[in-house]
Amino acid sequence: MLRLPRTIEWVDGRVRLINQLKLPHELEYVETSDWRRVAEAIRRMEIRGAPAIGVAAAFAMALAAVHSRAGSLEEALRELEECARILKSTRPTAVNLPWAVDRVLRAARAAADVEELREMVVRAALEVQRMDEECNRRIGELGEQLIDDGDTVMTICNAGSLATSYYGTATAPIYLAHERGKRVRVIALETRPYLQGARLTAWELKQAGIEVKVVTDNAMGIVMEREGVNLVIVGADRVTRRGYVANKVGTYPLALVAREHGVPFYVAAPTSSFDLSIEGPGEIPIEVRPSEEVVYIYGRRIAPEGVEAIYYAFDVTPPKLITGIITERGIFYPPYEKSIRRLLSAA
Amino acid sequence: MLRLPRTIEWVDGRVRLINQLKLPHELEYVETSDWRRVAEAIRRMEIRGAPAIGVAAAFAMALAAVHSRAGSLEEALRELEECARILKSTRPTAVNLPWAVDRVLRAARAAADVEELREMVVRAALEVQRMDEECNRRIGELGEQLIDDGDTVMTICNAGSLATSYYGTATAPIYLAHERGKRVRVIALETRPYLQGARLTAWELKQAGIEVKVVTDNAMGIVMEREGVNLVIVGADRVTRRGYVANKVGTYPLALVAREHGVPFYVAAPTSSFDLSIEGPGEIPIEVRPSEEVVYIYGRRIAPEGVEAIYYAFDVTPPKLITGIITERGIFYPPYEKSIRRLLSAA
Repeated sequence: MLRLPRTIEWVDGRVRLINQLKLPHELEYVETSDWRRVAEAIRRMEIRGAPAIGVAAAFAMALAAVHSRAGSLEEALRELEECARILKSTRPTAVNLPWAVDRVLRAARAAADVEELREMVVRAALEVQRMDEECNRRIGELGEQLIDDGDTVMTICNAGSLATSYYGTATAPIYLAHERGKRVRVIALETRPYLQGARLTAWELKQAGIEVKVVTDNAMGIVMEREGVNLVIVGADRVTRRGYVANKVGTYPLALVAREHGVPFYVAAPTSSFDLSIEGPGEIPIEVRPSEEVVYIYGRRIAPEGVEAIYYAFDVTPPKLITGIITERGIFYPPYEKSIRRLLSAA
Repeated sequence: MLRLPRTIEWVDGRVRLINQLKLPHELEYVETSDWRRVAEAIRRMEIRGAPAIGVAAAFAMALAAVHSRAGSLEEALRELEECARILKSTRPTAVNLPWAVDRVLRAARAAADVEELREMVVRAALEVQRMDEECNRRIGELGEQLIDDGDTVMTICNAGSLATSYYGTATAPIYLAHERGKRVRVIALETRPYLQGARLTAWELKQAGIEVKVVTDNAMGIVMEREGVNLVIVGADRVTRRGYVANKVGTYPLALVAREHGVPFYVAAPTSSFDLSIEGPGEIPIEVRPSEEVVYIYGRRIAPEGVEAIYYAFDVTPPKLITGIITERGIFYPPYEKSIRRLLSAA
């Protein structure tokens, strides 16, 4: 069994989540019965990763319902709607968050009285978590078949258990391979500027007892050449209908390097990350974040005063560089336009 | 005229060099008459950059000769040979260091007595510096013709004035273009782990009044795509007979990205960086440095305890990705085996 602390849990009317800002130095939890504190945790990025904040928002709704003092169903619903509005405003870009909140809200609206509302909301929130975990486990089962005993897998950022309720997306095949007794070594790109690879991916893999090494992002070429990398697996923030993948900045050059070395390059993502309303790369909005997040490290300026950074937080990898996309419904192969359409419509 | 402080100078039997570890925050100098302190400065990377450490090593030899208490020519030569041995052990990859040291040693061996040895060694060391500056100016004159008014040039690490005695190699075309009134914008990859791009390249370009932006190394793909990069120019630590280029880690993926986007990728290097005894990529020794240099930033660990980094300080870019190599003797174009042989033998 996997030895990994749970990213977020529902414990007897309370929510317990790992404060990821303290990693990798301390494993510290936030435990609260106050839904506002969970909203705060999302806002402060104590919990991050699109699927994980979806679960956190669902649990926040459950806290609001369970601890509500509303005397009537109407009042309880009004409270939950207000709670939903605030939760949705915490991180406006993640699509999983409004999706999870709305799902819980729908459950609440089906209740006949306050007591039933509480039950249905908690059940719906736990269902959001369970679905996420099942998706990832399925991605892991499909993806682990791509990993041979003794393989070295390279990844970027943290599409790990910490970014989800469990298993992660890019890490799920690694965890499943490990569970099934395969020896796997992981090379994690540190992922500037937030260092999610060095801080989070390295931490969770180490917790699970998997060998992991960290490298700077610019080492992707020489490491691919000299360290016997067998496979690259990355996560995805958005996948378009034609198979363009928006993910953490650095994914695209990593895919170019992998192609050059004939190393298979896989994307692992639940089908909920597919945006079928979008075709090509130009339609994906790429978040441009403040220069300060690059030019300051631990409060120290790395560039001279007056010199600013350009900070694109994501890049887009074209389908021609992607060997396959591992989803809970199967592995998609090129041509993606066809395979995505076929598999999603069959579901 | 260019407004740039001197990287390293010989001042009346002393060596004065910019402590580059203090940049961009402070312009602080190391000034010493002890050759061992200069060796230490090379080892600690207070001075770095292949041509600059060549000059520093030559100056260290000069300090050793000038301050030697040797009673005989034989003894003085033995001291210098020991000094040369230690200097060569400070940094393994750049070829300029042993080249400069051997050049000074040859001058010493031609001396008839200790007094002449001192004179000849100092003269040879100053000659190394003068040649370097002249080389770079010539590289600049040739390379600036590749830059059009309004161009955006991308570079990695610091193959700048700070990496040489003046002008730099990759930056020389930029400085010359600027001197000649062309508007140039530079995008500097920050270059983890030592951040020479953010700290040094951004600093010296700003000193010279050239517009510069910093980006994380992993942003090379999206920045090439969205920022209208017209040209990439990088330095070189070693160029083989067949045109393989060892340079700061990250150069190779940058070359892959440039090719993908049809952006010309130039290497700027003096012919002293050419190692004609070596053919292919496998023969270039790639310096592997301690994990700590990656996993600590400003004294803080970025990866969990027990997780180490793999740190290759250089990578190798194959000739097929290189548009041209700008040297003081002309711009070499493919096939490099031919053009390098022809140009070097004509000299």
